[in-house]
Amino acid sequence: MPDEDQELEAHEHTSRADVRPVESLACERAAGIFRALGDTNRLRLLSLLMSRELCVSEITGILDDNLSAVSQRLKTLRAERIVAARREGKHVFYSLADGHVRDLIANALAHGNEHE
Amino acid sequence: MPDEDQELEAHEHTSRADVRPVESLACERAAGIFRALGDTNRLRLLSLLMSRELCVSEITGILDDNLSAVSQRLKTLRAERIVAARREGKHVFYSLADGHVRDLIANALAHGNEHE
Repeated sequence: MPDEDQELEAHEHTSRADVRPVESLACERAAGIFRALGDTNRLRLLSLLMSRELCVSEITGILDDNLSAVSQRLKTLRAERIVAARREGKHVFYSLADGHVRDLIANALAHGNEHE
Repeated sequence: MPDEDQELEAHEHTSRADVRPVESLACERAAGIFRALGDTNRLRLLSLLMSRELCVSEITGILDDNLSAVSQRLKTLRAERIVAARREGKHVFYSLADGHVRDLIANALAHGNEHE
């Protein structure tokens, strides 16, 4: 429609009508997920869960970190539904929440490694 | 190797030998990328670039935002190599840096939308 071109400036641009931002709520949610992932220690923890589900004592042992720090990170990651928890007897096992999360982490690590 | 099982605790866990964190430098870089993506306004801007490359004046017009705010966001995103810039005549066109970035944003938006 010609009306959509009314804002077209003197220099040549194609119509803007094809470009719309994603709605704010979706962007807010996604930003929250990214903020939770934007911490080196939380990412190291998540990189373990790329292999398989683990309980808190395993994570603490592998990272040689203290239990309360690891628990706090898991709490943050659960709040953003980045990790899921599953109880089995005395233990709670943590895993990546879904395939999107797995892809997010794999892609960011790949992107980081590409630009030396 | 049996030595790898020496830390196995009394309760039943499979061996930890298969689980190693990604190296810290890779996690630091990935965390930097996630922090740059962890902002609602920057994500709205990036959601435009999912359609096609755009110049600053187009972005400013579509988002109905001011030029200096948009320029600052683009600067942050370029520093983390999330967007790339290409000069054509008087204009600088911005685009998503690569397929990893595109997948990151698409996955986070999909993950955010899944959990209503």
